[in-house]
Amino acid sequence: MKQSQLFTKIQREAPKDEVSKNAQLLIRAGFVDKQTAGAYAFLPLGLRVLNKIITIIREEMNALGGQEILLTALQNTEVWKKSGRWNDDVVDVWFKSTLKNGKEVGLANTHEEALAELVKKHVNSYKDLPVYIYQFQTKFRNELRAKSGILRGREFIMKDLYSFSKTKEEFEEFYEKAKEAYKKIFHRLGIGEETYLTFASGGSFSKYSHEFQTICEAGEDIIYVDKEKKVAINKEVLNDEVLNDLKIKREDLKEEKAIEVGNIFNLGTKYSEALELQYKDEKGESHNVYMGSYGIGPARSMGTIVELMSDDRGIVWPESVAPFRVHLIEVKSQKSKVKSQAGEIYEYLVKAGVEVLYDDRNLNPGEKFAEADLIGIPYQLIISEKNLKDNKVEIKNRKTGEVEYLEYNLEKISQFFK
Amino acid sequence: MKQSQLFTKIQREAPKDEVSKNAQLLIRAGFVDKQTAGAYAFLPLGLRVLNKIITIIREEMNALGGQEILLTALQNTEVWKKSGRWNDDVVDVWFKSTLKNGKEVGLANTHEEALAELVKKHVNSYKDLPVYIYQFQTKFRNELRAKSGILRGREFIMKDLYSFSKTKEEFEEFYEKAKEAYKKIFHRLGIGEETYLTFASGGSFSKYSHEFQTICEAGEDIIYVDKEKKVAINKEVLNDEVLNDLKIKREDLKEEKAIEVGNIFNLGTKYSEALELQYKDEKGESHNVYMGSYGIGPARSMGTIVELMSDDRGIVWPESVAPFRVHLIEVKSQKSKVKSQAGEIYEYLVKAGVEVLYDDRNLNPGEKFAEADLIGIPYQLIISEKNLKDNKVEIKNRKTGEVEYLEYNLEKISQFFK
Repeated sequence: MKQSQLFTKIQREAPKDEVSKNAQLLIRAGFVDKQTAGAYAFLPLGLRVLNKIITIIREEMNALGGQEILLTALQNTEVWKKSGRWNDDVVDVWFKSTLKNGKEVGLANTHEEALAELVKKHVNSYKDLPVYIYQFQTKFRNELRAKSGILRGREFIMKDLYSFSKTKEEFEEFYEKAKEAYKKIFHRLGIGEETYLTFASGGSFSKYSHEFQTICEAGEDIIYVDKEKKVAINKEVLNDEVLNDLKIKREDLKEEKAIEVGNIFNLGTKYSEALELQYKDEKGESHNVYMGSYGIGPARSMGTIVELMSDDRGIVWPESVAPFRVHLIEVKSQKSKVKSQAGEIYEYLVKAGVEVLYDDRNLNPGEKFAEADLIGIPYQLIISEKNLKDNKVEIKNRKTGEVEYLEYNLEKISQFFK
Repeated sequence: MKQSQLFTKIQREAPKDEVSKNAQLLIRAGFVDKQTAGAYAFLPLGLRVLNKIITIIREEMNALGGQEILLTALQNTEVWKKSGRWNDDVVDVWFKSTLKNGKEVGLANTHEEALAELVKKHVNSYKDLPVYIYQFQTKFRNELRAKSGILRGREFIMKDLYSFSKTKEEFEEFYEKAKEAYKKIFHRLGIGEETYLTFASGGSFSKYSHEFQTICEAGEDIIYVDKEKKVAINKEVLNDEVLNDLKIKREDLKEEKAIEVGNIFNLGTKYSEALELQYKDEKGESHNVYMGSYGIGPARSMGTIVELMSDDRGIVWPESVAPFRVHLIEVKSQKSKVKSQAGEIYEYLVKAGVEVLYDDRNLNPGEKFAEADLIGIPYQLIISEKNLKDNKVEIKNRKTGEVEYLEYNLEKISQFFK
């Protein structure tokens, strides 16, 4: 894409009311825009990153045998009354509104109820199970405060997968696979090293749930990490019993702030009992379906990446989710050769399938470099009169700052970015 | 995909409260599910169709130079107050709710305000214009009734593009291009022949707006069609002046019911004036930005396709948006050869990049054929003992009912579907 055609412009200052690093950087660099407190729009660069994150998660969900659907925000009130979660005293983040006929309606903050109701219509027999169903869908949560940028919004995209199994054992088998899929996802997103499988409070059906917590100063959670064993314990459940269960010594734990980037949960038969989601076994006898839920916030993941991967000049995207692979920067020159050569490289790379943002604007080099560093694309490919004189192009690694020179040869340049 | 693994099952009956053909067929065949009145979930088959429609629209928006973003449902109340559209007497489809701090908040029913506010932050100079920005985003409209299935929902996905131009002339040039892009989209969706560019009521900035109306019994609009000239007039503006403007004779017009599948609108400077969206020209003088809006509902398009393309056996998807290209049906047999050969064909087609739904279930042939007809995939590829004996496979065209036989040769079968 040619940067001259990108409608977003770099903002010199972040809005004064943004206190989080992720929102400050993402707004300044033109990735997101605050629509109202806790609700962020994704602009062209930001939507590219978000979609890459979504694609990675989707691939891993499909590899698990997940089937993708798309539920609605507007909820069937009756179903939530049955499960006991319609009441604001039970769920305190409802956004509720009123239909023209006076009936109350609520916006989904999660989808266990809707999924259980849906599966009820399609699953009858043991032969129909297990099934794994997921979506990327917008959740609404009426949070009291919204000061964490895209880490915690009142409106946000969530990947939520629900598993429906015949038995606890069948559920557990999938739960372990999901755990591995989650680890893989966070590695692919570039935050695998800092992300810990964390024991958190369970429910009626299991002693613990599992969170994936990424160590980060901006985190709202406190976890205790055993770096050796690569596990952590959420502060809310840390006690001698847990330490004993996990065979972890208190002195091996380090307190850290962390962001909950994912969680997986044994729902047991809580919702299937409440909503009468049953299957018939070989003998025709009915049983409650055993459920699990598995969430990741793609936008929260994006915010976490920004919190972790930035320096004083701006964002440093990991290659897997960067909006473009290469930032092609032509350095303004009296001679027209720079523009024509940069244009030639751009066309070649695009044809070769390399994702390039081409800064073809008529700005001073200093301004261009500062903006490129803020945007944070992994490689800056710099075309200047000086380099062309030596028949060279300059490639700067945004993360390391390392500079290499390549011969001005379209094929070689293209190969470098493959 | 193997049908044995698809969690949705064919429903024998449509829910009693569904009166529209599109909802009845789509629910029975497992494409959508009603979550609550006016809010439909997309199930695996339905999401595939929806995504194909979205992809077609996206390609045409990108070809127009559109830049994709994603705005939020939660709206900045202040901006809507400025434009004068916060009041329920002005906009009667608001879903409003209340934040924890007591402030009112509304869910977007359209995004002119949000877009104008956004562009204000990024556009200053004549050099920054024109820009074309679009999204696929969920709108909420508190409709009094919701009886038309996915043709009109309280919650629905909308593609809305907004154009920002320096002058009326620059706007008009783009408007004509958008018109052509819309025609192309409806042709690609398979409803081009039945869809008419329709003159409808304009606003302060132009005498007419343009709707794209698809002739269909389920439509809520009445239009008058000149089939010769390939244009139509919405009933609400039909008068002698319009006929004169368009040089159309009343006797050439035929009254038809129609579904509004798209509309394009000259917004002029209505929103840029209200929200102070201006640019500076070469001399440094400020002018209001000239806006246009361009909407298509992907789900409404899907509903329209179903209303138009179905028979007494079920849906007949056009190839461009069908959930799969081929429905591979193995006919139950005592001999295991049918299953192994069908499996072999399935693997081969998947590798060749052909989208196949493989009915590998242990059902009676009659049931399988009836379900395949209901689902409406363009080609049914039937593998039976009888055909295999003759070293043949049977291919049935869902639309025409025509049957052909091909030699049992993987390469030839695959070529047929390319």
